[in-house]
Order: sequence, then structure tokens, then C-alpha cells
Amino acid sequence: MIYELTATDSRSSARAGIITTDHGTIETPIFMPVGTVGSVKAVTQQQLKTEIKAEIILGNTYHLYLRPGTDIIEQAGGLHRFNGWDKPILTDSGGYQVFSLSNNRKLKEEGAMFQSHIDGSKHLFTPENVIDIQRSIGADIIMAFDECPPYPSEYDYAKKSMELTHRWLARCVKRMDETEPKYGHRQFLFPIVQGSTYKDLRKTSAEFIASMECEGNAIGGLSVGEPEEMMYEMAALCCEYLPTDKPRYLMGVGTPWNILENIALGIDMFDCVMPTRNGRNGMLFTSNGVINIKNKKWANDFSPVDEGIDCPTSNFYTKAYLRHLFVAGEVLGLQIASVHNLAFYLHLVKQARAHILQGDFAAWKEQMIPQLKQRL
Amino acid sequence: MIYELTATDSRSSARAGIITTDHGTIETPIFMPVGTVGSVKAVTQQQLKTEIKAEIILGNTYHLYLRPGTDIIEQAGGLHRFNGWDKPILTDSGGYQVFSLSNNRKLKEEGAMFQSHIDGSKHLFTPENVIDIQRSIGADIIMAFDECPPYPSEYDYAKKSMELTHRWLARCVKRMDETEPKYGHRQFLFPIVQGSTYKDLRKTSAEFIASMECEGNAIGGLSVGEPEEMMYEMAALCCEYLPTDKPRYLMGVGTPWNILENIALGIDMFDCVMPTRNGRNGMLFTSNGVINIKNKKWANDFSPVDEGIDCPTSNFYTKAYLRHLFVAGEVLGLQIASVHNLAFYLHLVKQARAHILQGDFAAWKEQMIPQLKQRL
Repeated sequence: MIYELTATDSRSSARAGIITTDHGTIETPIFMPVGTVGSVKAVTQQQLKTEIKAEIILGNTYHLYLRPGTDIIEQAGGLHRFNGWDKPILTDSGGYQVFSLSNNRKLKEEGAMFQSHIDGSKHLFTPENVIDIQRSIGADIIMAFDECPPYPSEYDYAKKSMELTHRWLARCVKRMDETEPKYGHRQFLFPIVQGSTYKDLRKTSAEFIASMECEGNAIGGLSVGEPEEMMYEMAALCCEYLPTDKPRYLMGVGTPWNILENIALGIDMFDCVMPTRNGRNGMLFTSNGVINIKNKKWANDFSPVDEGIDCPTSNFYTKAYLRHLFVAGEVLGLQIASVHNLAFYLHLVKQARAHILQGDFAAWKEQMIPQLKQRL
Repeated sequence: MIYELTATDSRSSARAGIITTDHGTIETPIFMPVGTVGSVKAVTQQQLKTEIKAEIILGNTYHLYLRPGTDIIEQAGGLHRFNGWDKPILTDSGGYQVFSLSNNRKLKEEGAMFQSHIDGSKHLFTPENVIDIQRSIGADIIMAFDECPPYPSEYDYAKKSMELTHRWLARCVKRMDETEPKYGHRQFLFPIVQGSTYKDLRKTSAEFIASMECEGNAIGGLSVGEPEEMMYEMAALCCEYLPTDKPRYLMGVGTPWNILENIALGIDMFDCVMPTRNGRNGMLFTSNGVINIKNKKWANDFSPVDEGIDCPTSNFYTKAYLRHLFVAGEVLGLQIASVHNLAFYLHLVKQARAHILQGDFAAWKEQMIPQLKQRL
């Protein structure tokens, strides 16, 4: 077992735990910065470690397979060696990207045919080759190949899609069993619960996923446009059927308040492009609320970006300077906003963990959420 | 006097010295990273200090006047406070940018009328208000307002332009004498030798500039398209007439080999956008020569970007990873290339200084230049 449950909140389902991988331990709940093509956008590996204090980052199978390609990654000795990040890495399976980014995709029982969004070249992803690619990348946690249905989806479509995802999962598990890690460290497969926004499908899927007895489990297909309340309802339902002695990963979520609410439901792991993508557009998440740094009101605000967190970048640069960088189109603006937002997300999950251990998570969460949502 | 001459090379005119400002000392010869709008593009202030080991950076009067504007900079308490760089800053006067960037500029005895390249708004720069703006910015070294004639220029045009620059200089000096620093630290005016590529004009100009008895002197109007040999000839000629007990700043130069050749002629200070601009285009200057990192040959070269210099970024990331970042269009690529190139330039001038002090600069330079120019 890679997961150790350390504490459970008495007034919610929030949990504190530790995941152990061959690249180190991860204290949960955790947020994982997204490094799609092997680089967290506009952030250095040193900043990830020393300022953001990330414990695990994401890579993306779809992107890394297309560029630089598995041959280069294998020659490097895996993604950890290639990008210099020696802590844990999780790779998304590419299923989501095949449907959101590529062209002319065609879904078959065998897998998904698609054309690269870069050069139009044709490719086939199958449960088997997606495992093989993730073996080549060398991620510590690798995701099963799934279909992520859009929101809203018809019941019949959602059901068929879920069943396909389940059949693909069985093939992923088989391929995992038949193959070995390439770089001497262990790799763990996480399957993904689907079922759109249908309770019975989510229950069926969560039960099936749980029955596969993998080392951790993920919930996919949420935060794809459904109302927030529906996301919470589905996440809560999935948590009910997913085992408590294994980590639960809610994919692609979300805002700071989404994260706190889902922690309360029993989620342990999160990833989202929001802190970096919104950061590059000038949206900052801070201890005091949400800031649009391009707004004129910050032009002569010489207070630090955020004094409430322990991040040199957030403490050093002022709002006025950061606004100036955005208005002038300077790259340094993107860098500061990205580092700050990620540091804030990591700060938030670490605070959540401390309050779970302290026993006052639920009260703290209720007090934090209005503060986090406030528009400054 | 702000300059102390420490050593002169026996086999060339190279000098080692120290410039003292209220924001610290600068060991010369020195290269100054360009921070046009108050940010060295794609580089953090922390990287400038700890990795690049910059001793002084540039700001630009034209850009800072337009954005964020002197009101914001004054409210911040000067540029040092605004951007958090607490070491020396030099500001270019804006003369060069009025002619290279703005629209509809009109030159008059009074000054230069121009339209902003950002919003088309109309502005007038005069020797007086350019000094006032630089007082507001609070740079340690501020440049006189000059006209920089293009290459090639007719003799008559170059002569008239030089004479105008000289008259403007007298007005700059007067304005400096009439005004006070705004933030309690001293500011020193450097005048600029012009005269295009005409020896007699350069001699006249250098003599006039020297006669103003400022704390340091600059050479402008070179590296604007003339052959390299002509640049060296003009720089050598100017150095002949500029005092030896004051620093000499060659504006806008250049490649690593340009810098070593000009150090040999007696130049102490350099600035250029080349390391950052070319870096952003994938051109790296390294200990072993010039690299186009986008080239396919680096795709599986897992050696560090440059092991020959003491810069964590250059030592940590590999050529293969950096190439991947450029090919994938990742911002981190620009960051790594910019930090590396600047660290390399600073490394080079520090090495030059060490060899001047050691007494073997000329021999070292001859050995280095072919190595630096080599295309890898």
C-alpha cells in the first residue's frame, strides 16, 4: 500500500494522509502543478521546489508522446531525468486531450484514432500503448486510459462511455501486469471513475473501479461545465464507494474554494491549470481574495502581491510593479503570477492538512471560503 | 570621483577599475543587463543577483516615461523601490528610442517631438525634461539627451547632429546643476560622444565631452550597422581623447567578441539587448561557442547548457530539455536562455577583469575570441 491515512476530520470527510513513492512522499491533501509538456509554464524547477514547495507535478501523455516523443524521453532516462524534477510525477493518460485538443478523433473499441493538433499526423491511442508510453515517461503514478464525456451528456451516451472506460481499464491493468518499469522505480496505476452526472452510473463506476484494487483511485469527468453543486454531489457519491485506505484524486479541479469543499468530501489529490492559466491572464488568488492585477486600482498599490503566504516571490514584488509588467506585456509578469498562484494553492492545501490534524478543519473551511471568493 | 583605476594591461589598453555609487560598487569592465521598462525580460530580480551576478542594470527613460509614467515611479520612491532592484541602475536618456521606436518624430533645437509607439500620444523630450524624468526615475547614472545618427550618415548631417548633441549636453549639465536628487542618493550624468564614423568629428566630440568634466563618459552611435573594424577604430579613437581616470561606456555593444575587443581598447562598461533578445530566439552564447538551440542536433544532447560558467540554471538544464522547451513554445525556454546568456556575459567580463589584474589579458583574449565565435 502506498497510502497511509493519518487523520480524519470529525465534522467532515476530510482526511490527512501520506503517499509514498520511490521519488519521495507526498503529504495529502495535495495540489499538483500541471507541467503538460514537462515544464510547469513560466516556472523554474527551482521555484517549484523552494518557493512553491510542490511535492508532485503532472505531465501529460498526449503532449509528451507528440513532443519530444518517447524516444527522446527514454534516451534521457525518463521524464525525471529529462526535466530535472526528481520528486514524484503523475501522468495523465491522454484520454482527455485526445477529445479536447486533437482533430478528427474516432473512437473504437480498440482505442482512439486522432490527428495531432501540432502537425496533423495520425495516431492511435489504445489502453495498451498508453500504458507503454507512460512506462517510457516513467511517472510514479500513471492514469488509466479513459473517455471523458462532455457535460451535458445523454444518459445512454454516458453509460456506453463508462462501460468502454471500464473495458479499457481491464486492458490497462493487464498491460501493467505484463510490463515492467523501465528506470528501476515503481509505477502505480490509478483507474478513473466516470459516469457523467448520473448518480447510478457514478455508483456503478466507483464500485467497479474500487473492485480493481489499484493503489489509488481517480474521479474524472467533473469540472467540465456542470454546476458546482452537482460536482460536489458527484464527488461525495464517488467517495462513498471508493476505499478509504487509498488516495482519491479529483481530476482537473479547480478554484481554491472548490478544493476546500472537495477536501471536506474526502478528496486527497487535485490538479488544475487554473492557477497558471489564470495567472498568465492576470488573475491572482490571494489570502485576501481574488485580484485582477490589470485593474487600474493596483497601479499605485505598493504592497506585496501577498504577504499572507510564505513565498519569496509573493512577498517581494508589489502589486503596482506586477500590474506594470502585465500592462507592458513583460514576461516577468507571467512568471510572478504563476509562481504566486501555485504557491498560494500549495499553501492552501498545507493549511487544510494542518487544520485536519488539528481537528478544526470544518470550521476553518467555512471561515475561509467567503474570504477566498472575495473580489478585491 | 566615482571611478578608481585599479590596473591597466601592459599589452593593450584594457583597464580594471571600480565605480562607486550610493547603491554599491561596480567592478569594471562590466556588462549591464538591459531592463528596458524596469524588468530584464524573462529574468527575475533574484536570478539577476544570485545567478547572473549583475552589478548594475539599465532602465530606459523613453519606456519608463510612457509606462508606468513618472508619477507612479515617484510614488513608489524611485525605480529601485518600484522594481526591487537595490543595486546600481543606469538610465538611457531616451534619445535613441525617440528615433528608433516612436512615430512622426520632429527634431528641433528645443528637443524632439514624437508620438508614442504605444498609443500615438504626442510628447516632447528636451534636454531639461529628460534630466527631470531621470531625476524622478532615480537612476544612479543618468545619460545626457543626444541624437544618435544612423549608419551611414552624410558628413554634414553627422556634424550638425553632433553639434546639436553638444548644445543639448550643455543644457543637460545646467539642468543637473539646478536640480537635486529626489531620493537621497547621488546621481551622475554621463555625456555621449557622437560623430558617426568620421574621425575628425569623433575627435572633436570626444574632446568636447571630456571638457565637460563629468564623472564618466559614453560613446554612442556605434554598433548601428557599420563594419566591426570601423566600430573598433572609432572606439579606439574616442578612448584616446576621453580621460583615463573616468569610466568609459560603449553604448549598445555587442557580441561576446565585440566586448573583449573593446575592453582591449579601454572600454569599461557595456550594455546590449543581444543576450536576452537573441536568447529568446534560441541563440545561446556559451564557453564553447554559439549554439542555435532549436537545431535538431541538440534533441538528444543531455549535457548541461553550459558547464563552463558558475550559474545554476546553465549547469542544471540540459540542451535537449531546453531545445524541447523552444520547440514546444514553452515560456521556461525563454527564461533559461535569458538567464544563461546574461550569466555568460557577466562571467566573460569578470574573467576579463581577472586576466587584466593577472597581467595576461591580451593573450587570453586572443585565445578566447575564436572559441567564442565558433558555431557549434
